[in-house]
Parts: sequence; structure tokens; C-alpha cells
Amino acid sequence: MKILILGGDGYLGWPTAMHFSQRGDEVAVLDNFAKRRWELEEGVEPLMPTPPLQRRAKRWKEITGNEIKPFIGDLCNHRFVYNVLREFSPDAIVHYGEQPSAPYSMQNRTTAVYSQVNNVTGTLNLLFAMRRHCPDAHLIKLGTMGEYGTPNIDIEEGWITIQHNGREDTVLFPKRPGSFYHLSKVHDSANIEFTCRIWGMRATDLNQGVVYGVDTSTTELHSDLRTSFHYDHVFGTVLNRFLVQAAVGAPLTVYGQGGQTRGFLNIRDTIRCVEISVDNAAERGEFRVFNQFTEQFSINDLAEMVARVSKSQGLSVEITHLDNPRIEAEEHYYNAKHTLLTDLGLNPTFLSDEVLSKMLTTVRANCDHVDADVFAPQISWSGRNA
Amino acid sequence: MKILILGGDGYLGWPTAMHFSQRGDEVAVLDNFAKRRWELEEGVEPLMPTPPLQRRAKRWKEITGNEIKPFIGDLCNHRFVYNVLREFSPDAIVHYGEQPSAPYSMQNRTTAVYSQVNNVTGTLNLLFAMRRHCPDAHLIKLGTMGEYGTPNIDIEEGWITIQHNGREDTVLFPKRPGSFYHLSKVHDSANIEFTCRIWGMRATDLNQGVVYGVDTSTTELHSDLRTSFHYDHVFGTVLNRFLVQAAVGAPLTVYGQGGQTRGFLNIRDTIRCVEISVDNAAERGEFRVFNQFTEQFSINDLAEMVARVSKSQGLSVEITHLDNPRIEAEEHYYNAKHTLLTDLGLNPTFLSDEVLSKMLTTVRANCDHVDADVFAPQISWSGRNA
Repeated sequence: MKILILGGDGYLGWPTAMHFSQRGDEVAVLDNFAKRRWELEEGVEPLMPTPPLQRRAKRWKEITGNEIKPFIGDLCNHRFVYNVLREFSPDAIVHYGEQPSAPYSMQNRTTAVYSQVNNVTGTLNLLFAMRRHCPDAHLIKLGTMGEYGTPNIDIEEGWITIQHNGREDTVLFPKRPGSFYHLSKVHDSANIEFTCRIWGMRATDLNQGVVYGVDTSTTELHSDLRTSFHYDHVFGTVLNRFLVQAAVGAPLTVYGQGGQTRGFLNIRDTIRCVEISVDNAAERGEFRVFNQFTEQFSINDLAEMVARVSKSQGLSVEITHLDNPRIEAEEHYYNAKHTLLTDLGLNPTFLSDEVLSKMLTTVRANCDHVDADVFAPQISWSGRNA
Repeated sequence: MKILILGGDGYLGWPTAMHFSQRGDEVAVLDNFAKRRWELEEGVEPLMPTPPLQRRAKRWKEITGNEIKPFIGDLCNHRFVYNVLREFSPDAIVHYGEQPSAPYSMQNRTTAVYSQVNNVTGTLNLLFAMRRHCPDAHLIKLGTMGEYGTPNIDIEEGWITIQHNGREDTVLFPKRPGSFYHLSKVHDSANIEFTCRIWGMRATDLNQGVVYGVDTSTTELHSDLRTSFHYDHVFGTVLNRFLVQAAVGAPLTVYGQGGQTRGFLNIRDTIRCVEISVDNAAERGEFRVFNQFTEQFSINDLAEMVARVSKSQGLSVEITHLDNPRIEAEEHYYNAKHTLLTDLGLNPTFLSDEVLSKMLTTVRANCDHVDADVFAPQISWSGRNA
């Protein structure tokens, strides 16, 4: 199959590209390196160096014999997008190519507008280009569980059947996202659903939980193939940050009370979920939504697990509660369904002490250059920083 | 009260501005004349000439002694928006300042992306500027009933209480909009709701039905004060187009079967609804939604009413059914709630034969320069035209 990975230079995009390449698919990656620029804006860098995409692709070919073709350019440049789709003519497009950080979007007007315009325009350009050059291709779009917010009812997978005043309809699950970034994903989902309805596009919207993990079976093959693991307050997801804090003896920073509960998954499961979606394409005209996570945890749960595992490795770890920079419920009902991917064959890697301990070991082996100043949140949802 | 009307050069913005000015409010209008440029792009013009905004404001002052202050500029220019809010410091902001046409947005990639980026960016800039310079001001944002689509359940006013698996929550009513334009309004609503939640903004989202009508009590005062009435396939709402078609002896063009049912209201009621919203501000932190229409009709209902009234004026009118350029249900359940504005004092002007006959008389007195070539739809939802 011909698979195009948008955002192929990123934390998830690069290992996804290697995975499909390894199993024999024809893979191309597209990136404009915007993420690396945002890192420079924020003064942060990944835990381990990540060589340029072309060099990683070259190394991949040396090691495996397989080619990953890089397309360098911006999804907001529609001529570029049309050209890539015409030339490569993919069967499936995995779309990670967006500004992915809630704090980044919440810094000020510029980053809020940028995040929404960048993400919405890129996805609209993609949809129009697909209609023109590969209308039968399957779009696998990365969304986030954060689109739903924390409703007081069970979260279904994208669609919900409502009984109301004696009548019934199946409608898109109502969303209440928690940042301008999360809103951009909600806008994307609405736009994609519309094009499925009017143009017969086929799309899978993956509402992904919070990803954790340092490596995958392919990133381990060579140091040049490692993926960009973040532990900072802007791009670092919570468990990844906790692991680095533990490794360097810094306190684990829980925002607020820590009762915030979310869905989580291992980076290896992200790749497996995307693979399952690619291998089981949505129908023409279908807007399919999967909730892509394997377990629910509260932030306190995670902090306690990391502290326990760290202790077993002889580390002394403290847990501190900071004023919550976000505006969010800190104690709430949360029960999100996530059976559709399991029904299609996902066999989850759960967050055991063993899994956590292995990640901590890897992080400890790579924590010589950690910048402890970027752990603490510096971006407030209230706008006091704007 | 100090009231700022965004899109104050438009069909609804200008009479709204005159109305508040007449009753003694301090009124400013903001416009960048983008709508007049879109008209030129499409090769269409309003039924009657509309002088430049500054000249209309001058005429208004001559006739009434009241000043309407024009601010000329673009909501997408955030410095301009910040400056206007700092200088004028409004108590209420009525936001009509968006690309308002579904067909315009559906022409091609350029107009789709433009409509969403223009509308979303303008509204985000406004929200950030309000937070900076007038956080207590009340935002009255014009949305559309088209955001809801045509669900098989009753449409509530913005929020719906759902029972699901033994639990309950009140959530935003699920939407399923019918064009890239309608989607832009959905995106706006989501963004505004978020700022009410995190910054304590106060907002009223007016999901307006299809507006009809030629004049209001203020537009009748002088020919220079008339508003920009459109009858073309891009900017003309359906009943307005039918009236002009009847006036010039052209067939009334129903799209498809004509069972499409929507909410409608008289332009005089639009102004009254906005007035009610301004006079009954939302609370700080409240995202309030009103469904702003007075009656439901199918397109066939309207065609038959126009034909009957035309006949009573001695006109012979034919009704034709065209292939539907839109992708929409042509027979469907439709029951949309609209009691909140009535509860606050709206006394509707219903679409009687008398009201219709008076509008037709006005249109007939002004139909010397009608371009019958712009009645027929030229923009297809399927993308065949793109």
C-alpha cells in the first residue's frame, strides 16, 4: 500500500513511517519542520538529538534497504499539497501534520490564531487536494480525546444516539474542548465529516489519548532513528515529563489537585492503532471515529506509579502540586468508551510497573543534558501571561 | 449605551446601526467593505444602489441629528481591532462582520479556506481585543440556524440536556452544518463558548433563520438610507429572490423537491431580536444561545405564497424545480425551538399575505435594473464547478 505520513518528522510521525516501511508498504513523509521552529521559539529541545529527516531516511535505507521518501513543504501551501498527492498518489494518508500543543496555543493571540489557522487550513487544503487527485484514498486524521472535554456522561466514540422528546437521532458526540489547540481539532473534525457527507471522502478520526513512551521496535535500531521525546511544559506529555523529572531527581509537578482523569496509551499502541485503521479502511462517505487509548488514569495515579517505580530503582522522588495553569475540572466523572480498535485487533500494552521501569531506565541513560528549567508551566489559561 | 456594529455596511448591520442610533444609543459601525468586493467578484449588485457608508452616516446625521461613527478596517487586522475597542470602549458589540454566504464558500478551495480563515480569525481577534480593552462588554454574535442541520430530533436553543447510560449532562447541541460557511459559524461558536468558560466573557450567539424583507422603519426615511437587498444566487436569501423573480416575471426557482424546511424571520424582527439581546445582557461567563426566527416554512410553502400574492397583484408566476445545487435533505423532520426571544418580549411580524404584498410592491417599484441572469444557481456543492 502507498502510505503518506503528514508530520513525518515528529514524535509519532517518524516511528509510524518506519513501521509501515518495515512491513513492506511504500511510504512517504511530509513535513515543514514547523515543530522544530516552535521548539526554538520556546527554548526547548527533545531529550535526545533528532537528526534531520533526510538523514534519518538515509540511515533507515542503509539499515533496512527500504526507502522513505521525504516531501519537504507546508500543508498551508496548497500547490505543494496538490503536487505531492498527484505525484505520490497515496492509498492512505496519516495526518499528524498539525500544531500539537495546548499550551503553545494558549500563550497569546498570535499563537491561538496561528494554531487554528495553520491546522484548519492545512486540513482543508488536504481535503481539496484529495478530492482532486486521490478521492478514494483513506484519510486517517489524528484528533484528541481532549476534544470531548470532561462531560458528566459516558463518552462514546464520535457518535451518540440521543432520544429526545420521543424521537431519536445519531449525532456527533457534543464536544467541549479545553484549549485553542483542542478547538482546532474540533474544527477539523467538523470539516472532515462534512466532506465525507458531500464528497464521499473516507475518513477515520482518531481521538487519541495522551501518549507516553520513549521508543518503539524501529527507533531502537539506531541512534539516528530515535524519535523526538519531549519533557518540557509546552510539548511534553505528562507521563513523559514525570519520567524525566524522576530521572534527574526533580519533583513530579502535578497541576492542581491531580484528579484530572484522561485516557492514555503507549506510543507503540499509537502505531498499532494507526496500522489497524489503515488496514481496515472507512467506507466511501464514512466519517468513522475511534477513541484511541488503552487505559484511564488520573494525574495523581501516574505520579504515584512513577514515584513507586523510581523508588524501586533507588531514586527518591517527591510529588508536588502546583497551581493549575489550565482551567479544567480537577475532580470529575470520566468514562470514555474505547472498544472499536480493540474489536479490530488492538492488543494493548498496559502501563505495568515493568513497562514504566523500562522507560525510566531508557530515560535515565539519556538524561545528561536535561534542562530542569523547562519542567515548570509558564503558560496560563487565564491569559495573565498574554 | 455604546454599541459597536461589526459589518455595519451590510444588509442587517446598517439598519441595526440606525435603529440603535434612533433610540438614543451611541453607535459606531465597523466595516472593511469586503462584501462589496465579493459582489464584484460574483458580478452581482444589490437591487437598489447603496451609497458609501460614510455618505449614509452623513445623511443619517442630517436627517436625525444623530451620529453614527464609521471605523473602516478589517477584523483580521488585530491592531485595528484593538485600537477600535480601546478608543470606542463599547458596552455591546453586535457581530455581523463575516463572510455570510454558503454558495460563496462552496465555490472552490480558495473561497472555502478564505471564508473559514476570515471568519474564525476575525472573531478570535475580537475576543482577544475584548479581553484586553472591554472584558465586560457583551458580544452579540450572529450565527445561523444552518449550523444545526436537519436532525431527526427537536432542535433546542444551543444547549440540550442528554440522559445517557443512567447519567445526565447539559451539553452544546450537536451540529451538522451544510457548507464551509456554516462550518465557520460552528467554529466561531465553539471558540466563543470557550472564552466564556475560561475568561468569563459574556456572549449571546444568535442562530438566525433565513431573513427576508426590503426595508425597515429607518431605511424608509431616505433613499440614501436603504439597505443592500440581494436577489442573486450567491447572496440573495430565498424569499427575497422569489420576490424579485415574481416582480420581473421570471419563474420562482425551487432547488430540488422543495421540501427543505427552515426557520425564517422578517428583517424588522432581526433588528428587534438584536435589540432584545443587547438590552438583556448575558451574564459574565455565560454562553447564551437564542434561535432567532419566527416561523418555519418549506421552500415550496414560500413559492406558493409568493405565487398567490403575485397573482393578487395581477402577475402571472410560474414555479420551477431545478436540480438542487446543494447537498441537503429535501424531505425531513424539522422542529426548532424558538421561545427564548419571545419570552424576552419579541412580538413577531409574521409572513402574512399583506406583509408579502407590501414587500412585493416595494420590489416592483425598484426592479428596473434587475439582472435576471443571476437568479440561477451556478455553484454546486458536489464540487463539479471547482
